[in-house]
Amino acid sequence: MLKNRSLIDPMDFTTEELEDIFKLANLIIENPKEYKHICDGKILATLFYEPSTRTRLSFETAMMRLGGNVVGFSEPNSSSVSKGESLADTVRVVSNYADIIALRHPLEGAAKVASMYATVPVINAGDGGHQHPTQTLTDLLTIKCEKGSFNNLTIGLCGDLKFGRTVHSLIKAMSRYKNNKLVFISPKELKIPHYLIEDYLDKNNIEYRSEEDLENAIPDLDILYMTRIQKERFDDIDEYNRLKDVYVLNNEKLKNAKKDMVILHPLPRVNEIDPEVDSDNRAKYFKQAEYGMYVRMALMAKLLGVM
Amino acid sequence: MLKNRSLIDPMDFTTEELEDIFKLANLIIENPKEYKHICDGKILATLFYEPSTRTRLSFETAMMRLGGNVVGFSEPNSSSVSKGESLADTVRVVSNYADIIALRHPLEGAAKVASMYATVPVINAGDGGHQHPTQTLTDLLTIKCEKGSFNNLTIGLCGDLKFGRTVHSLIKAMSRYKNNKLVFISPKELKIPHYLIEDYLDKNNIEYRSEEDLENAIPDLDILYMTRIQKERFDDIDEYNRLKDVYVLNNEKLKNAKKDMVILHPLPRVNEIDPEVDSDNRAKYFKQAEYGMYVRMALMAKLLGVM
Amino acid sequence: MLKNRSLIDPMDFTTEELEDIFKLANLIIENPKEYKHICDGKILATLFYEPSTRTRLSFETAMMRLGGNVVGFSEPNSSSVSKGESLADTVRVVSNYADIIALRHPLEGAAKVASMYATVPVINAGDGGHQHPTQTLTDLLTIKCEKGSFNNLTIGLCGDLKFGRTVHSLIKAMSRYKNNKLVFISPKELKIPHYLIEDYLDKNNIEYRSEEDLENAIPDLDILYMTRIQKERFDDIDEYNRLKDVYVLNNEKLKNAKKDMVILHPLPRVNEIDPEVDSDNRAKYFKQAEYGMYVRMALMAKLLGVM
Repeated sequence: MLKNRSLIDPMDFTTEELEDIFKLANLIIENPKEYKHICDGKILATLFYEPSTRTRLSFETAMMRLGGNVVGFSEPNSSSVSKGESLADTVRVVSNYADIIALRHPLEGAAKVASMYATVPVINAGDGGHQHPTQTLTDLLTIKCEKGSFNNLTIGLCGDLKFGRTVHSLIKAMSRYKNNKLVFISPKELKIPHYLIEDYLDKNNIEYRSEEDLENAIPDLDILYMTRIQKERFDDIDEYNRLKDVYVLNNEKLKNAKKDMVILHPLPRVNEIDPEVDSDNRAKYFKQAEYGMYVRMALMAKLLGVM
Repeated sequence: MLKNRSLIDPMDFTTEELEDIFKLANLIIENPKEYKHICDGKILATLFYEPSTRTRLSFETAMMRLGGNVVGFSEPNSSSVSKGESLADTVRVVSNYADIIALRHPLEGAAKVASMYATVPVINAGDGGHQHPTQTLTDLLTIKCEKGSFNNLTIGLCGDLKFGRTVHSLIKAMSRYKNNKLVFISPKELKIPHYLIEDYLDKNNIEYRSEEDLENAIPDLDILYMTRIQKERFDDIDEYNRLKDVYVLNNEKLKNAKKDMVILHPLPRVNEIDPEVDSDNRAKYFKQAEYGMYVRMALMAKLLGVM
Repeated sequence: MLKNRSLIDPMDFTTEELEDIFKLANLIIENPKEYKHICDGKILATLFYEPSTRTRLSFETAMMRLGGNVVGFSEPNSSSVSKGESLADTVRVVSNYADIIALRHPLEGAAKVASMYATVPVINAGDGGHQHPTQTLTDLLTIKCEKGSFNNLTIGLCGDLKFGRTVHSLIKAMSRYKNNKLVFISPKELKIPHYLIEDYLDKNNIEYRSEEDLENAIPDLDILYMTRIQKERFDDIDEYNRLKDVYVLNNEKLKNAKKDMVILHPLPRVNEIDPEVDSDNRAKYFKQAEYGMYVRMALMAKLLGVM
C-alpha cells in the first residue's frame, strides 16, 4: 500500500510498488480525462527552500491536472525560515493546511526530517546533492514507455558520473532489474564512485564497463543518458580542454548509434547536447520532462490514496 | 450583516458578529464537504508586501477549501511598488480582478487605507506591529472549541506582554466576555501597557494579576498563552540571563497545571516551548493553526456574502 | 482562425481577428457566468522574467475566471535561468506542462524566440521596451466599449511619446481605422518618432497635429490617453521644471474638455494624473484595467480554441 507513505529516497519503494505507479501513469497518459477530477478538493503544498522552477512546475501542473490545488513558496526569502522557525514546526503547521507536501531543501536529510513531523505524505523534491527520487521515477517511466521494459538493456551513462546524483540513483534503481549492461562514459576525474559498483552492480551481477570516449561507446547502446560536465570539476585545465568536446553529443557522434537508441537528459542542459540533436527522433529529453509530470500525477494519486 | 465589510481591527466586529463567524467555522469543521463549493468562481488576492508564509498559506488554503481561487504576491519585489504606484491605486486595480483582498503590509494603517479605496472587502493580514485581526479570530475560535465558552476562564498570558500585538488584541477581545481572570506572566521589562488595564480591564471589571514566575502562575490556569521573549528587549543582560529559562515552558513546569489546561502560541515559536511539550495532549498550538484556517474560511464566506 | 496562434506583436492579428476577440470579450462582460467553465482543465503558465504584478494578476485572474488554472514564476530568481538554461529549452519543457504561456522578458524579441520553440500558444506579456500587445488590446477594447467605435475619433496622446511603447502600439493599431484624428501632446524632447508618422499615419491618410500644451489640446478630444513623463528623459533640467506641471492632468485642465471625453492611462501612474480626477466620471483608467482582464479572457479562449 502506498497510501499515506512518503517518498524520500529513490529506493523507498519496491519494484512492485513502482510498477503500480508506472501502470497508473500509463493509464493517465492514455486517457487523461478520466483522471482530471480524482484529486478534487486536495491541496499540494510545494515548499521550495531553494528555487527549482522545472521541478516545481511539474509537481504543480501534475496536481492541477488531477483537479487539485496548489499553495507554497518558491524561494527561502518568502518562507518563515527567516523568522527562525524549525522545519519540523513548519511542516506540522502546513500539514494542517495541505494534503500532501513536496519539499525542496538545500540540506541533505531535510526531507527525511520533514516526513517524521508531517502528518501528511512528504515527497522529497531534492535535498541538497543527496536525493531527487521523482527524477529517478521520471527516468524509469521514460525507459519503460520508450523501451517497453526494464530488462535486457545496454545503458550508457555519460558525463559527470562522480557527483551526478541522478545517475547514481538511476544505477541503483536499474540494479534491481535483469540482464542490463551499464557503460560508464566519463573522464577519469569524474568516474563512478566505487561503492556503487561494489554495493549495487557486483552484488547483483550487473555487467558494466568504462569508456573514456563517447563516440566509441555509442554503437552498443539502447539508452544514452547524458549529464552535464562542469569545468570546475577538473584539477587540470589542459585535461578539460582535451576532453570538453568529447562529451558534447552532436549528429556526427550519433552516426553509428542504433536507430532506436533513446537519448535522455535530466535537464537543464547547458551545452552537452548540441541543439542540432533536438530534431533527431531519438532525442527524448523533452518528452522525458513530460513523463515527469505524468509520473508525479500517478505518485501523488497513490500517496493520497485516491487510486 | 458582514457582507461586503472589511476587517481591519480585531474589534471591528461585535461579539454577535464574531459569534456568527465562529458558528459557521464550527459547521465547516464538522462537515467540510458541505462547504467545498460555496466560493466557486471567487478569487482571493493575497497582497503580501512583506513575507509571512504561514498567514499567507492559511488564507490561500482557506479559499481553496471553499472552492475559490487565489492570486497574489508574497514579497514586495514582485509587486508594482517598485514602480512607485500608490497602495490606493494598486487595490483599486486589484478590486477589478479579485473578489476579496488579504493585505499584509509593513506600515501601520496600510490596511485601513486599502479598505478606503478597494471596492471589494479587505482583510488586514498584519500591518506592521499594529493589528493582525485574523490571529485574534484564530485565538478566539481555539478557545471556543477547546474550552467551550468565552466566559469563566483563567487565562495566563506569558512572555513579551509589552510589545506582543497578538496578546494585546486577545486582551481587548476577552474584555468583552464575562467572569474571566487574566494572569500576566512577564519580566518587569516586558509588562503589559497600562492603557490596556485602564481602558479595557478596569472599565469592564475584568480581574487580573501579575506574576513574574511562570511555574507559580500555572496551577490556576485554564489557558496558557505563550509568546516569544526576545533577548534584545532587555536593558540589562544579567536580567535576561536570570530570566531566560523562567519563561521556557517544559514538562517540569507543567507538572502542577490542570489536566485540561490548554497551551496556545501564535507561532512561530523559537525556543519558548520545549519540543518535549509537543506530545503533551494539552499542547494545542498546532491545532490552533488549523483553527486559523477554518476561521478564515468562515470569515471570507461571510464577507463575500455566500453564507 | 486564432486557435493555436501566438500573439507577439500588437499588429499580428487582422482587424477582423481583433473584432472576433472584442466580440467575445463583450459577451463575457455581459454574461460572465456563461463562460466560467470554458477553460476547465486548462493551465496557463505565467513566465515572468521580470516582475509586473498588474499584468501578471490580470492574466492569472482572466484564466481563473474561465475555469482554468495557473502556474509560473514572477521573478527571474526563482526560474531556471540561474542554471543557465536557454529560453528555448524552458518553453519546450513548459509546453509539456501548460496549455498556453504568457511570457514577460527584459529582452526585446524574447517572446518571438519563445513562440518558435513552444508547442503551445505564447502571448507576449512585454519584452523589454519593445512590445506589449495585450496592453494594446486592452486600450482598443476600452475605446470600443466606451466610445462605441474605432472610427471618427479625435484622440489626444499625452506625455512621453518618444519612448512610450504603449502609445506607439496604439498609434499603429488606430492607423487601421477610419476618420480618426491624432493630437500629439508632448515636450519637444519627447516627440513622436518620425517613422510612425511616415509609415503609419501618412501612408493611411490619418490626420494629426502636435501640441505642446495639454490645456490647449483638450477641448477637441474624444479620448485623452495619458502617459508618464520621466525627469531623466530631459537634457535640460530647466526645461523639465518649466514643463512638468503642464502635463499633470487635474480638474482645472479638464474644465474645457468634452462632457463625454474618456481619460485613459496604461497605469501605473505616478503623478501625471492628480487623484482629484479619479472621481470625475470621465476617468476610465481603472475601468480600463478591468477591460484588460476581459480582453485577456477572450484572447486566451480564442488561442486555446475553446470558443
